[in-house]
Amino acid sequence: MRAVGMVVEFNPFHNGHTYYVHQAKAQTGAEVAVAVMSGNFTQRGEPTIVDKWARTRAALANGVDLVVELPIFYACQPAHRFAAGALRLLNELGVSAVAFGAEHPQWNFADLVRAATSFDTAALKQYNATYATQFNEQLAQQTGVSLKDPNDILAFAYTKAALANHYQFNLQAIQRVANDYHDQVITGTIASASAIRQALLTGHSYEQTVPAESRDSLAQVSQPPSWDALYPLLRNQLIQAPVDQLHQTYQMAEGLEYRLKDFAERSLDFDHFIHGIKTKRYTYAHLLRLCLYTTLQISEAELANQVDHPYLHILGFNRLGQAYLHQVKKQVTIPMFTKVGQGMKDHLCRLDYRAGKLYQTFTSVEQDLKHAPVIQR
Amino acid sequence: MRAVGMVVEFNPFHNGHTYYVHQAKAQTGAEVAVAVMSGNFTQRGEPTIVDKWARTRAALANGVDLVVELPIFYACQPAHRFAAGALRLLNELGVSAVAFGAEHPQWNFADLVRAATSFDTAALKQYNATYATQFNEQLAQQTGVSLKDPNDILAFAYTKAALANHYQFNLQAIQRVANDYHDQVITGTIASASAIRQALLTGHSYEQTVPAESRDSLAQVSQPPSWDALYPLLRNQLIQAPVDQLHQTYQMAEGLEYRLKDFAERSLDFDHFIHGIKTKRYTYAHLLRLCLYTTLQISEAELANQVDHPYLHILGFNRLGQAYLHQVKKQVTIPMFTKVGQGMKDHLCRLDYRAGKLYQTFTSVEQDLKHAPVIQR
Repeated sequence: MRAVGMVVEFNPFHNGHTYYVHQAKAQTGAEVAVAVMSGNFTQRGEPTIVDKWARTRAALANGVDLVVELPIFYACQPAHRFAAGALRLLNELGVSAVAFGAEHPQWNFADLVRAATSFDTAALKQYNATYATQFNEQLAQQTGVSLKDPNDILAFAYTKAALANHYQFNLQAIQRVANDYHDQVITGTIASASAIRQALLTGHSYEQTVPAESRDSLAQVSQPPSWDALYPLLRNQLIQAPVDQLHQTYQMAEGLEYRLKDFAERSLDFDHFIHGIKTKRYTYAHLLRLCLYTTLQISEAELANQVDHPYLHILGFNRLGQAYLHQVKKQVTIPMFTKVGQGMKDHLCRLDYRAGKLYQTFTSVEQDLKHAPVIQR
Repeated sequence: MRAVGMVVEFNPFHNGHTYYVHQAKAQTGAEVAVAVMSGNFTQRGEPTIVDKWARTRAALANGVDLVVELPIFYACQPAHRFAAGALRLLNELGVSAVAFGAEHPQWNFADLVRAATSFDTAALKQYNATYATQFNEQLAQQTGVSLKDPNDILAFAYTKAALANHYQFNLQAIQRVANDYHDQVITGTIASASAIRQALLTGHSYEQTVPAESRDSLAQVSQPPSWDALYPLLRNQLIQAPVDQLHQTYQMAEGLEYRLKDFAERSLDFDHFIHGIKTKRYTYAHLLRLCLYTTLQISEAELANQVDHPYLHILGFNRLGQAYLHQVKKQVTIPMFTKVGQGMKDHLCRLDYRAGKLYQTFTSVEQDLKHAPVIQR
């Protein structure tokens, strides 16, 4: 069996994802679709609209055969680290191809990566808005390509990670369908995840854009998860922890701890806080991730250690996915498991476990410890 | 002018307090009543029903002439430390007498203190229920007195602190009036603070038991402050902080950090948590205070430093109180101020400031920084 890998958030799983999964199989000729999916927090550092188990169920019911968690230390990172982490897991899983959406699938991303080699150190600091702008200007000068759409940026990052690590799988860019990321108006049965979340938030109809399994879990969301609800926890940490301890937080660079503490003391709601700390130097995504690291008290040292010890937490599978797991398990070189045990929660999986406890702000469901995988019959 | 000092929580200020203030003046012959009042957290480590400013306003409108904050590092402590801290401040303020309620004002507390000298090291561990029981048994054997009512226990602690420090003021025990601490049924115009809070919580009438100023502030309480609302902050700290850091928390003795972390992970509400961690060894009051220290991230070292650097934060006064302040200010040997400035919030008053930020869970009112004192005309 050959598998195609995908890196996904499914936040929530919608009809566009169903189309994309089938395209990925069709365009690569793979029999098995493997999704490496962010857990309960997105790349932007925000809580997902429904938990990872609900999203796994919807994915398995709609074309995905195997869902593996993208651990938070890869998932909540800028594009280049997010992509590198996800591809490392897909390579472990022995996929023959990796498919991803792109606004411009016709571009030769490998050529772009090679062209950017000379100035690509800047890309390592993509969270810094100034560097990102400089990088894009240089790339446009050299290649005529303007890398600014979110899926193109990720496509570039996947290609770069694959080339750098000499991964053997093929890369398959798939055209993004109508109603793209920026389009917030729902007109047909295909809408962006962002538009669907917005519709849910504002009480508009979105039901025609998602499969039944997503509809069911979304219907149970009374207060959509957001930083508004997590802010009291972030605020308390910023106020109560000494600045030298806050300084240890992953990505807390250049005296940001003073700025965050100051605005936390003065801001009673998240909106006031996040607009207060925003500067040209940092993107909102970078600051949201920093909010998450701070709330989870993740230090630079702890993150570095976890990044070096990845694992494959199997969230769910169907018969095909199970057979595929059986086929590849002997080649896997990192821990692979379907259940987080008592010892794992404090060691191997501790960041995901702690993120799951934070996510219990929104649900009483235990997110990790002894949670059985979703099995689609 | 001579002043009588009182150590109070006024949680909330009620008719019994009005009676008690007038008795204190009458029985000591003092012209001025000075209250050293806990800020926004009680001796038991719980948030007060209304903030310290509302309680100061009610006190000044009903017989108290000067209100000084009992800093949290004295206020949220077992009886002996609470009493010692409060009397240290009253001594600085040059009071001629200190009045306190007692269930048995006829007892000679000085004799009890002297009798207990031989076994009183146990009293230093009053939070430990086992030691407290042993202490009481020994005292009963030697003196025939059973020290078990809450105000008698405090009276003992005041007397002990006054004797140990050779304070010159008189100690005046005042008979507790009907409807004492344990009586939860409101029948007349006098009720215990506990009964009034309970009535507010359960939607029963309490209005006849409090003066107009308390009535007004209590009427604005929609969700009475409690640990239920603070629990998510405590839980997150217990889950996210490493055990070696939790171990640094003031009073986190004997591996309690493991027990607290374990129950925090498993408990989604405070009720489940606090009953889970309770053992015979520790009283609820001790555990509630430990919850507060943990949420405020107060370390052993930080608390020790603050205890050695007390101050007089004047919360409010009337003309008599102001004149009295003018009279004593030259003899005061510790910092005395009416407003917390920018530099003070991070140094001298940092624990009160941080407690005030935590109390903003219940109110948008800034509790310290640049807050003007209450002036009663």
